[in-house]
Amino acid sequence: MNYPWPEPGTPLEQVATPMPVIDEDRLAANIARVQTYCDTHGKAFRPHIKTHKIAAIARQQVEAGAVGLNCQKVTEAEVFADAGFDDILITYNILGPAKLVRLKALNARVTKLAVVADSETTVAGLASAFDADRPLSVLVECDTGGKRCGVQTPEAAVALAERIAAAPSLRFGGIMTYPSIGGAAQVEAFMARTMALLAEKGMECPVRSSGGSPDLFSAHLVPSASEHRAGTYVYNDRSMVRAGHCTEDDLAMYILATVVSRPAPDRAVLDSGSKALTSDLLGFSDYGSIVGFEGARIVSLSEEHAVVDISGCTRPFAEIGAMVKVVPNHTCVVTNLFDRMVFHRNGIVTRVENVDARGTVW
Amino acid sequence: MNYPWPEPGTPLEQVATPMPVIDEDRLAANIARVQTYCDTHGKAFRPHIKTHKIAAIARQQVEAGAVGLNCQKVTEAEVFADAGFDDILITYNILGPAKLVRLKALNARVTKLAVVADSETTVAGLASAFDADRPLSVLVECDTGGKRCGVQTPEAAVALAERIAAAPSLRFGGIMTYPSIGGAAQVEAFMARTMALLAEKGMECPVRSSGGSPDLFSAHLVPSASEHRAGTYVYNDRSMVRAGHCTEDDLAMYILATVVSRPAPDRAVLDSGSKALTSDLLGFSDYGSIVGFEGARIVSLSEEHAVVDISGCTRPFAEIGAMVKVVPNHTCVVTNLFDRMVFHRNGIVTRVENVDARGTVW
Repeated sequence: MNYPWPEPGTPLEQVATPMPVIDEDRLAANIARVQTYCDTHGKAFRPHIKTHKIAAIARQQVEAGAVGLNCQKVTEAEVFADAGFDDILITYNILGPAKLVRLKALNARVTKLAVVADSETTVAGLASAFDADRPLSVLVECDTGGKRCGVQTPEAAVALAERIAAAPSLRFGGIMTYPSIGGAAQVEAFMARTMALLAEKGMECPVRSSGGSPDLFSAHLVPSASEHRAGTYVYNDRSMVRAGHCTEDDLAMYILATVVSRPAPDRAVLDSGSKALTSDLLGFSDYGSIVGFEGARIVSLSEEHAVVDISGCTRPFAEIGAMVKVVPNHTCVVTNLFDRMVFHRNGIVTRVENVDARGTVW
Repeated sequence: MNYPWPEPGTPLEQVATPMPVIDEDRLAANIARVQTYCDTHGKAFRPHIKTHKIAAIARQQVEAGAVGLNCQKVTEAEVFADAGFDDILITYNILGPAKLVRLKALNARVTKLAVVADSETTVAGLASAFDADRPLSVLVECDTGGKRCGVQTPEAAVALAERIAAAPSLRFGGIMTYPSIGGAAQVEAFMARTMALLAEKGMECPVRSSGGSPDLFSAHLVPSASEHRAGTYVYNDRSMVRAGHCTEDDLAMYILATVVSRPAPDRAVLDSGSKALTSDLLGFSDYGSIVGFEGARIVSLSEEHAVVDISGCTRPFAEIGAMVKVVPNHTCVVTNLFDRMVFHRNGIVTRVENVDARGTVW
């Protein structure tokens, strides 16, 4: 479709809303800050592309020193392989013939491809889909307190590692976890114990991969980890400020929105609904904050409307037709709604990038 | 991108997940049931395309007897105008030069185009953007208890109607409301009073448009309304069952998902995360129901994982690799995540349609 995406040089005030926009300088600073931290502490850094899904940003991350990319889906990894990236970790249990066929094709053309597994079922599927002449690297996913996927104990991790190592078509690549927030000590304990048990069996554990943006700057408290993965850090969001990961000056994404109605003294309506902000609360009781209007609360979303309770706003709220900037609770899901992303520097549009991996199905 | 969208004839068991699928027979029955109801009660029916965003479904709705379409954004309306639809109501305050230029171009090629306004600011913008030789039809949006947009009183509605009627480039098209659930009596009172006040001034009120799926089958309780708008009814969802609008047999959309992990006795993980189901709760405390597994609760979503508490499940939960069907809380926002939609009849894929208006920005 012939969208009116803004040309470079357009002032943000002229961008039609709702539209997420990315601050180039903050983006670059976020990339540099995290890479420097990881370099300082001797951790490989592997950015998760889920937050941006844009090849050009992944390139900025790798040029800054990232070791490779982290994807969550086979089709996402395909997009970044097409863009020339040659070190991709898919942190997901890949199951079923359709995906395994695609994964095998991907392994044939990506220099370093790896996936994770947390069950014998997943390992058996991978083992039968791949060949010994082009084995797939598989890491064991470990539940270190995040209570999502992952084997529950170091002993179970070792048992699954042995299953992987025993399959001629697979290589045991190491261990991986997506920890709970504040879980550095648990990650370290789980990893250290697993490595010790593996060593007892004479097995190496090449990669020990931990992750997450909220605790990124605690990665040095996990000496056993060899790499850290993070996605949200690149844009940051309201939840990252709350977690103490960053300040408001590090927020690279705003959603530009327009006040479309002031129907009652205590109420304003923006054009950024759940199809622009998503309904992700991440523990907040409202759907984003509005820059410069402290006390105004986005109390409910329809698909194309955000209802703002302005009764507690510390100054008169913006009038109908005015543009405001919304800090989203969660940037990664906003990315998933837009086909392109608008970048700017000091309020002037610099580029519009395709969100290359948006709409990747599985 | 070269996605593995399923070919017609493919059994759903072979569709890679996560993937929303639409039951052709239930879709057709939902369309027929609502049209028959509206025909019976002498209401024009105007389906809202937000739920499906697919021209082929809009065509089914119009062929069944719908008077025209309801869109929420200018670019959505453009998509459906491109597809040949000639009666479109955009139920939104359109503001700002970029959108007004596009709206004017749309008005030049759509036989019957109308928008709504709830403020003098919106009316003034429309009035200055359009010309007397091709005036735009504008309805006054009224807040009848929904507490979103809309003028607050019948008197305010009439005052705004007079502003519209006084602009040579605009035509007063009537009144429109998006009511609260259970608000039929309020809608009737507001509409009847507004029509009476307009009549006193010798003004006609050509269209009186109410809307919403939850209360659709109460539309006959609003005799003053000439038309009803609804979107969700076409697919239905968990919230519509709860509202009593439909039964589980009328659910046309499921999200196919795969069990990717069974990490602990009380926990299973599906591959349908917030990037497949969205985080819309709509008053529920969990993120969808799993067909055939009563008591299993989707208690949290990551972007690509759904964590299911299976401790209360009334029978053994599905094993790793098995496919399950998730009833989403809210179908309209799922539509907004996928580029294409897979249709089936009795579990066999019938067609794959582009979600034509997905990604329309504003």
